Amino acid sequence: MGLFGEIIFMKLVSFSSKEYAVCGGVLEGDRVRPFGQGEADPVLAYIRSGSSLPAFDGASLPLDEVRLLAPLQYPPRIFGIGLNYREHAAESKMAVQSVPTVFLKLSSSITGPDTDVLLPPDATQPDYEAELAVVIAKGGHRIPEGDWEQHVFGYTIVNDVSARGVQLATSQWTLGKSFPTFTPLGPCVVTRDEVPDPHALDIRLTLGGEVMQDANTRDLIFRIPQLIAYLSKIVALETGDIISTGTPPGVGLGRTPPRWLRDDEEMVIDIERLGTLRNRTRVTE
Amino acid sequence: MGLFGEIIFMKLVSFSSKEYAVCGGVLEGDRVRPFGQGEADPVLAYIRSGSSLPAFDGASLPLDEVRLLAPLQYPPRIFGIGLNYREHAAESKMAVQSVPTVFLKLSSSITGPDTDVLLPPDATQPDYEAELAVVIAKGGHRIPEGDWEQHVFGYTIVNDVSARGVQLATSQWTLGKSFPTFTPLGPCVVTRDEVPDPHALDIRLTLGGEVMQDANTRDLIFRIPQLIAYLSKIVALETGDIISTGTPPGVGLGRTPPRWLRDDEEMVIDIERLGTLRNRTRVTE
Repeated sequence: MGLFGEIIFMKLVSFSSKEYAVCGGVLEGDRVRPFGQGEADPVLAYIRSGSSLPAFDGASLPLDEVRLLAPLQYPPRIFGIGLNYREHAAESKMAVQSVPTVFLKLSSSITGPDTDVLLPPDATQPDYEAELAVVIAKGGHRIPEGDWEQHVFGYTIVNDVSARGVQLATSQWTLGKSFPTFTPLGPCVVTRDEVPDPHALDIRLTLGGEVMQDANTRDLIFRIPQLIAYLSKIVALETGDIISTGTPPGVGLGRTPPRWLRDDEEMVIDIERLGTLRNRTRVTE
Repeated sequence: MGLFGEIIFMKLVSFSSKEYAVCGGVLEGDRVRPFGQGEADPVLAYIRSGSSLPAFDGASLPLDEVRLLAPLQYPPRIFGIGLNYREHAAESKMAVQSVPTVFLKLSSSITGPDTDVLLPPDATQPDYEAELAVVIAKGGHRIPEGDWEQHVFGYTIVNDVSARGVQLATSQWTLGKSFPTFTPLGPCVVTRDEVPDPHALDIRLTLGGEVMQDANTRDLIFRIPQLIAYLSKIVALETGDIISTGTPPGVGLGRTPPRWLRDDEEMVIDIERLGTLRNRTRVTE
């Protein structure tokens, strides 16, 4: 019957190595078991297959001999949710609405763990945003709130990097959040069964070792069931879609004076049960 | 050297017929010459090939024996431009910004000519928007304004249908413009050589025969060179991307009282040199 119904505990990654240009993998302790070699987006292909287990390609490899990539390379869409923690809405000087504030991030902005987030001169006022993200299993139109869990494949971490100067130059946020490398994603997709309650996860971001965001997903205003129901009331969700649930307070925009990202700073996001997503900033021409 | 450089005059369509499930075609008077049979998106595949002429499949068919589809089925992205005619910004009670206001429409909202635009109950305050749209040939990052024309494959018509109740419930417009069928597109893609000056085209929309929008693209605030330069400064444009340049005054939102779309109304958009895009509204459950 496949994964869309079954109980499966897995941490899925994409990686490259000496042997594999792009490959899927299941984390097993400090080793990774390869699958989906030759697929452009092996984890997405596996999710789409609806199979209960990936078709493994060979012997497992030591994790320290591979380079992790973003676990999903070309998700159909990345829906971002704005203003979904009350104190973040306040620090942004924006009002919480009666329905979720939804924007898109372009998939071309995805980057993996342990990569550089590139800051060109046009990306003015760059800022970080730690977020819990949901990966959709089976899509659907008009999904009832009560059915939400069977449409979730798993969870991952997104850093919704945002050039505030571009994002807030007009009313529409998409472009300022879609510069190349502005969506660090990973390090893995954790299947839903490993996360008994996604609304009770500690979430934290440090910048150069200093704690900037420190919250818990229990403070989400619109929870995952409501987000899935609201989005799918309007557009049919597709397998592999990502919903990034919004960021807690503590972003650079909300500080006095604002604290923009600088060159060569390390952003580290930890979300309970999902691991650690680490990226470094690099100012470019 | 292929189409990205050569001068080619063509009107490209996608269609289905007795013989072909989905097929590309070149309009030749009242006949259509088929190509790209078996491709999911034959016109996009042809544009991507960079060939000067499509590889034709067989004899031409009478136009009245085929059913036209949207000329592009799965463009990578649809960039919408807001508030790009001064009087439309005024009627929307929004200020013109110093840079283009850019949002995304989901490609899943595309529909073809002569189809129904579906109005479910959640799509409150539905409205029409006639727009000139640009189809990108060769993509690129940081395209100089002066190089704009070599990155344009051609032009088509978009009806940027918008449920104002959803679009304006929060600050972000994407969802309210992305219900299924909310992006009528077509009837054809006209190659750039057939349009000597895209900034001098009459554009008109009638609703049930009444003229609602009647303008000329010379009144665009941000012109195509600026739109391509601005967008590509931030994200790399891709072959097949659509940039819909914004709507002139006369939308339902700007009227007193507002004039929302009702059941079974015919929207007809004419743009000089690009043809006529005709769709009918249908209220659904």
